[in-house]
Amino acid sequence: MTDKLSAERPWPRNAWYVACTSAELAEKPLGRTICGERMVFYRGHEGQVAALEDFCPHRGAPLSLGFLRDGHLVCGYHGLAMACTGHAESMPGQRVRNFPPIAAFPVIERYGFIWVWPGDRAAADPAKLHHLPWAESDGWAYGGGLFHIACDYRLMIDNLMDLTHETYVHASSIGQREIDEAPVSTRVEGEEVVTSRTMPAVSAPPFWRMALRCAGLPEDEPVDRWQICRFSLPSHVMIEVGVALQGQGGHDADPAVKASSIVVDFITPETEHSHWYFWGMARQFAVDDPAVTDAIREGQGRIFSEDLAMLEEQQRNLLLRPDRRLLKLNIDAGGVRSRMMIERAIAGERGHETVAAQ
Amino acid sequence: MTDKLSAERPWPRNAWYVACTSAELAEKPLGRTICGERMVFYRGHEGQVAALEDFCPHRGAPLSLGFLRDGHLVCGYHGLAMACTGHAESMPGQRVRNFPPIAAFPVIERYGFIWVWPGDRAAADPAKLHHLPWAESDGWAYGGGLFHIACDYRLMIDNLMDLTHETYVHASSIGQREIDEAPVSTRVEGEEVVTSRTMPAVSAPPFWRMALRCAGLPEDEPVDRWQICRFSLPSHVMIEVGVALQGQGGHDADPAVKASSIVVDFITPETEHSHWYFWGMARQFAVDDPAVTDAIREGQGRIFSEDLAMLEEQQRNLLLRPDRRLLKLNIDAGGVRSRMMIERAIAGERGHETVAAQ
Amino acid sequence: MTDKLSAERPWPRNAWYVACTSAELAEKPLGRTICGERMVFYRGHEGQVAALEDFCPHRGAPLSLGFLRDGHLVCGYHGLAMACTGHAESMPGQRVRNFPPIAAFPVIERYGFIWVWPGDRAAADPAKLHHLPWAESDGWAYGGGLFHIACDYRLMIDNLMDLTHETYVHASSIGQREIDEAPVSTRVEGEEVVTSRTMPAVSAPPFWRMALRCAGLPEDEPVDRWQICRFSLPSHVMIEVGVALQGQGGHDADPAVKASSIVVDFITPETEHSHWYFWGMARQFAVDDPAVTDAIREGQGRIFSEDLAMLEEQQRNLLLRPDRRLLKLNIDAGGVRSRMMIERAIAGERGHETVAAQ
Repeated sequence: MTDKLSAERPWPRNAWYVACTSAELAEKPLGRTICGERMVFYRGHEGQVAALEDFCPHRGAPLSLGFLRDGHLVCGYHGLAMACTGHAESMPGQRVRNFPPIAAFPVIERYGFIWVWPGDRAAADPAKLHHLPWAESDGWAYGGGLFHIACDYRLMIDNLMDLTHETYVHASSIGQREIDEAPVSTRVEGEEVVTSRTMPAVSAPPFWRMALRCAGLPEDEPVDRWQICRFSLPSHVMIEVGVALQGQGGHDADPAVKASSIVVDFITPETEHSHWYFWGMARQFAVDDPAVTDAIREGQGRIFSEDLAMLEEQQRNLLLRPDRRLLKLNIDAGGVRSRMMIERAIAGERGHETVAAQ
Repeated sequence: MTDKLSAERPWPRNAWYVACTSAELAEKPLGRTICGERMVFYRGHEGQVAALEDFCPHRGAPLSLGFLRDGHLVCGYHGLAMACTGHAESMPGQRVRNFPPIAAFPVIERYGFIWVWPGDRAAADPAKLHHLPWAESDGWAYGGGLFHIACDYRLMIDNLMDLTHETYVHASSIGQREIDEAPVSTRVEGEEVVTSRTMPAVSAPPFWRMALRCAGLPEDEPVDRWQICRFSLPSHVMIEVGVALQGQGGHDADPAVKASSIVVDFITPETEHSHWYFWGMARQFAVDDPAVTDAIREGQGRIFSEDLAMLEEQQRNLLLRPDRRLLKLNIDAGGVRSRMMIERAIAGERGHETVAAQ
Repeated sequence: MTDKLSAERPWPRNAWYVACTSAELAEKPLGRTICGERMVFYRGHEGQVAALEDFCPHRGAPLSLGFLRDGHLVCGYHGLAMACTGHAESMPGQRVRNFPPIAAFPVIERYGFIWVWPGDRAAADPAKLHHLPWAESDGWAYGGGLFHIACDYRLMIDNLMDLTHETYVHASSIGQREIDEAPVSTRVEGEEVVTSRTMPAVSAPPFWRMALRCAGLPEDEPVDRWQICRFSLPSHVMIEVGVALQGQGGHDADPAVKASSIVVDFITPETEHSHWYFWGMARQFAVDDPAVTDAIREGQGRIFSEDLAMLEEQQRNLLLRPDRRLLKLNIDAGGVRSRMMIERAIAGERGHETVAAQ
């Protein structure tokens, strides 16, 4: 199959990507392009999630315009019913046994997300799905959202692996002068790129004042603040962030004197120049208060939307000047190393393909 | 003349296409691209319809932005007046005798439509215009509309030559289970591709209940239903549809016990990936009641708009996967044979061009 | 630097173009593409205007999304501060000495406009900036506006150097039959192309009736009307227009018996197929009455917006038929000669580049 969308692939294919949230998959099928493939997601037998090519083998209609019947996805054009294996199941008045199958993508529902493996089916290993301990614990609460952003997903990884930009892009919420004054440290820990920064004895910016209030802590006292960004393949960035009352140990302080959370970022390529950005926050304070979840989601959504214009315009600039070299400063090391990890993964897949083709 | 729009032509050029309705051509010229040619349609001397290239030979302004004066089309930029032959007629302060002519397209006004012949002028034969007996008879009433659809006109022909899709796309109006359960028969009758289906002893779907009411017939009794789709070159599909009270002879039943009509479809290519869809219904019941015409037009417009998303998304899918082979099932035979007839017509024109070029 | 936008340049680069008005440049930087270059304009030290490439040398973000601090333009992404020379000035925690500079464009603020020189910095000569005597005199008033138009800037020059179109495009305001009946005279005067037309003893069209009223003159008497269009490089068109009471000398009549003004047109290329159109009117009547300025601006804006559809559709037609030759009539001589002057300027620059490259 040649496919215009996936002709060039600046992403690893053999990996679990977040395709949608569980809540997005209700009674109707959902069409979404992931890693250059038009896919349709739906709940089949007993609510089991399935993902197929969004292309009816009969006449090419998108299956996502169809409907579900007895656990099968039925094309809304002429009624071809598909099994979740990608094989035609039935069609009124037709023998479908010899219909060509379409691609079925391995898919897992876990942690409130639907994860898809766009690459080789045989290589899809559930054990490789990113583990989210907070999503399995009653001691945490989570809220989040989804943005469609018209830029290369790697620009978003750069963005999240260098939080210096908070001082500028998010000046009124989480940015503060001390961020870009604090030195950043970048290292590889196992299969993660980690870039971290600590800001001792600072005044909490507005977002963290809110969090301190929620945690029942004073918001006007000096705090030690930290940011630990963790990139892992294919394109997940988990950022441990928080503030502790000054001198209590910062990141390692007793939970009673700190407000902390994990900024959760799943960055799923759509096409070469666009991606789906699943963002959210997992927190350990006020976990039973849905009003706090809503307030944080609202605030976080507002903050992340500030990045949109910058990223999309940066993308336009880069497309207009493809030959221009960008700088790689120390603050960019997190993004640079993450991209190297991505490149290695892609090269590894290519090597594997070469071997397989011989 | 090289012309980007008409560089590739997946349609016959030497044929009469519906360009617009008579009602669309009032006092102002109308610009419309037909078969890849930007054309301007207008009423010249004594209301006679004319069609020219929509390109002023002076500076390339679209003549459709101009106006009519004394039966000539005057360019709205600098006042060049064109004759309906494509020759410049006059221009203030200029001798226009040596101005290069632009293309003039043969055009006929008949049956309430303006028909244009985009191909060789010399070959334009009024006798080849599709005959519409119902349009000349007082025993019929007609109402219709126009959609612009962003897909290859042949996808619309496929759509109309296989009404199986009614069960799925139009489930709430004319679709019913029995359609895709009834076998379809496809044959070539002279210069027509005919595909037909009969559904004996079914319950009438909502649209036909309405028609039965209009015809003064009971709407809750079982009926024999039929659909006879007739394709003819270049891209017309006339569909005889109706229901008769059960056991009275179906399509051939006495007019007093049936409600029937002709779904009229003129499918005019605009570009390779878009077309003008003139749809309507000619009926033999309640012919003097304009309220019925309006109700049918409203219902038919709603039904056909259900096809739009499906066809445009099907087109997007096909463009993304140009190498994918589609299936040709028995239900697709109507479309497949119609396309073969189109291909032969195009090949015939190419052969003729080759001869002419030697 | 290779740059997709400026790969083909149908405009002289070594010239002063109007980039924006002084009023457009307040506290925030302004991003605007001029002659294929994405530029950012801002007021630096002591309000001095500067223009840089709109491309942060760090990661390619548009500097126009940034802000001003102490006279430096600060990137809104990671805080790199740029000097107006195009050199990096400072960045928190970084040594910027070796950062690659970006292009800085020569810029002058004069006559209420910001003028930019997109070409060779060394060749930028303030003396070459178009002189506008009326802008320095208390005897004149000026008002104007800005349109973004999706067509080649040269189509606008054609438009303005042949006012025959007023009869057709602006029939209800400044157009009148006598315009295209009056012979046009075109000549080159020094570095200007001049095309002029006089219409003796005509009735004033609506716009000029308004001007006559403003000037305290009778609006219903016959007038002598004139239009003198002056093109100068790179793309300025100044049009002396006016009416005088009949037989008083026309253009040379005593100011007491005439209403006259200069239609001011700065036509700045954005890309090959779009431009910025700075239009306005400088007048010698009612100079102290801002209500007249507003009324003229409103009327002129309405008139010029009538040209938009025509020019943009003309552009579409020309792009679809690139091989079609246009006519060059006597009325087109102004545009034709202006284009020749532009071609010579471009050829001169190319010759210069060839020499410089040896």
